[in-house]
Amino acid sequence: MVKASSYAAQSAESPLGPFEIQRRDVKEHDVRIDILYCGVCHSDLHTVRNEWGNAVYPVVPGHEIVGRVSEVGSQVTKFKVGQLAGVGCMVDSCRTCAACKEGLEQYCEGPESFTQTYNSPDKHTGGLTFGGYSSSIVADEAFTLRIPENLELAGVAPLLCAGITTYSPLRHWNVQKGHKVGIVGLGGLGHMGVKIAAALGAHVVLFTTSPGKIEDGKRLGAHEVVVSKDPDQMSAHANSFDFILNTVAASHDLDQFVALLKRDGTMTLVGAPEHPHPSPSVMNMIFKRRSLAGSLIGGVAETQEMLDFCGKHGITSDIEMIRIDQINEAYERMLKSDVKYRFVIDMASLN
Amino acid sequence: MVKASSYAAQSAESPLGPFEIQRRDVKEHDVRIDILYCGVCHSDLHTVRNEWGNAVYPVVPGHEIVGRVSEVGSQVTKFKVGQLAGVGCMVDSCRTCAACKEGLEQYCEGPESFTQTYNSPDKHTGGLTFGGYSSSIVADEAFTLRIPENLELAGVAPLLCAGITTYSPLRHWNVQKGHKVGIVGLGGLGHMGVKIAAALGAHVVLFTTSPGKIEDGKRLGAHEVVVSKDPDQMSAHANSFDFILNTVAASHDLDQFVALLKRDGTMTLVGAPEHPHPSPSVMNMIFKRRSLAGSLIGGVAETQEMLDFCGKHGITSDIEMIRIDQINEAYERMLKSDVKYRFVIDMASLN
Repeated sequence: MVKASSYAAQSAESPLGPFEIQRRDVKEHDVRIDILYCGVCHSDLHTVRNEWGNAVYPVVPGHEIVGRVSEVGSQVTKFKVGQLAGVGCMVDSCRTCAACKEGLEQYCEGPESFTQTYNSPDKHTGGLTFGGYSSSIVADEAFTLRIPENLELAGVAPLLCAGITTYSPLRHWNVQKGHKVGIVGLGGLGHMGVKIAAALGAHVVLFTTSPGKIEDGKRLGAHEVVVSKDPDQMSAHANSFDFILNTVAASHDLDQFVALLKRDGTMTLVGAPEHPHPSPSVMNMIFKRRSLAGSLIGGVAETQEMLDFCGKHGITSDIEMIRIDQINEAYERMLKSDVKYRFVIDMASLN
Repeated sequence: MVKASSYAAQSAESPLGPFEIQRRDVKEHDVRIDILYCGVCHSDLHTVRNEWGNAVYPVVPGHEIVGRVSEVGSQVTKFKVGQLAGVGCMVDSCRTCAACKEGLEQYCEGPESFTQTYNSPDKHTGGLTFGGYSSSIVADEAFTLRIPENLELAGVAPLLCAGITTYSPLRHWNVQKGHKVGIVGLGGLGHMGVKIAAALGAHVVLFTTSPGKIEDGKRLGAHEVVVSKDPDQMSAHANSFDFILNTVAASHDLDQFVALLKRDGTMTLVGAPEHPHPSPSVMNMIFKRRSLAGSLIGGVAETQEMLDFCGKHGITSDIEMIRIDQINEAYERMLKSDVKYRFVIDMASLN
């Protein structure tokens, strides 16, 4: 075992603070990564504060991890020491179920589904998995991603969760040139959705409740920005969208967006609200054969595809860099949506 | 104009009673049908009692119409006098929009959408369209269906609405041999869903709240019947359905059924509840990339396809025949689900 520095929460009520953890010795198929940057996802905060009710402490959050390979196992073929590498939301899965065999490890049907990068039982140590708010991580190369060399690295970190969470549904619902695509919400997920949908060639309309975000939405690649509180702006887009990606986790009226879908259009939700959305209108779905769907991150192969796509199109997340000792303050700011558009921890600050 | 006998409601509070209406003279592309049978759909009751708030009186309901052609216009090619013919929920549409050109007239994007068989503005008379609780109807042959000669005619009438409403989503979501398909609810729609899904080759599981319907469900073609109030029976089917067709219009917990869908499975609703369903769980959709959708009747071409399919497979609706003067009583029984599984009016009783 090898010592690593980290920041951990010891209970739902305590702030994150320094904590020493052990990383396993590198096994045949393992890669050790010295972490350079880790993005801050809203899930980190939910888990730290046990808002989903399933946290086990200590929690070392972080699943938007990039760094450099410092050691490889004897059977590792994808990575060499010194190369960039990344880890996202998963570090393992059953690898034998139908979903895993299709490369959809995020929908793993094994008895424990996939192993989350943090706060899952760790089959190697018998303890818990610890995430990327730490100096290093050891992961199976099968769940480790190659990172394009041409991108600004800190801005790559959020691609590992926010990037794939938006890329996967955009690809699954076959968004392409000629499509009119809506992105609801301009936060960590939404701003990636705008960039990726635009790069896929779609006509992108951003929906925001904040008139102050219009300019930024356009800068990020939206062809139009609609203030969703304005009924006239909204009704002008009725029945016109091929696909809408809804990134807003707060409870809100879904019908106003479903009504903007064309016949056979789908709105996919990637945020799970703490309190239920108002029940969506069934008539709204029946009269245009519309669908409401959900989507969860993406598989390993698709995450690699997304990273390669971002490399090709020069896409990274818009970030605000913080030191690790600013993390508790960053959580408070995140709750106020006071971040454009993702905090990323400079892990050098851990020393 | 030609006189016809009918049963009409004169207000939301009044029962249906005898009423004389006028049918237009047959135009070039029109067919006059002497109505033999008309099915009784829950929509009839909703409209008669103005439960959707858009009724205009007098209302002559009925959109499950079968009869014999008694007159054809000079340009009619599909029908000859003496042949069987049917009319469903639509008698016209804009015919020029993208949906109409694709044969999806039920999703007509024209300014007034499609013309409903009853209680729509009638572009020929300037009044209202009157439905099938009448001695005859005149309809454009483009919206008139050919009826297979081999089926028991009274049981064909409900195919024009209950049949196509279930057939269309089963076909659209590509139900086929090898699929596990759920049908929620055993009423007018559900019993057609069971018959059609079984004929499409699927493994059919009927969900009902009534243990008393188990035997009947199996007789109608369900391979399994699950009493949805029993959590053990329900959880035994978790994550196993390719598709679920939910025919229940009363507000109910959708999550218990969504949880039975496989990854990428869809549950399609064909009933619109008066009071909203409890808001469906977003997590339930996200974790298996499941969809919730709606579907509305079917287009003219697909309705013909459904009738031909039913002819080939010997499928009709299970009906209870009534006289027209029993219609008000039948509505009361329908509200108590006291019908197996569709009332059909013997229109000879109108004389």
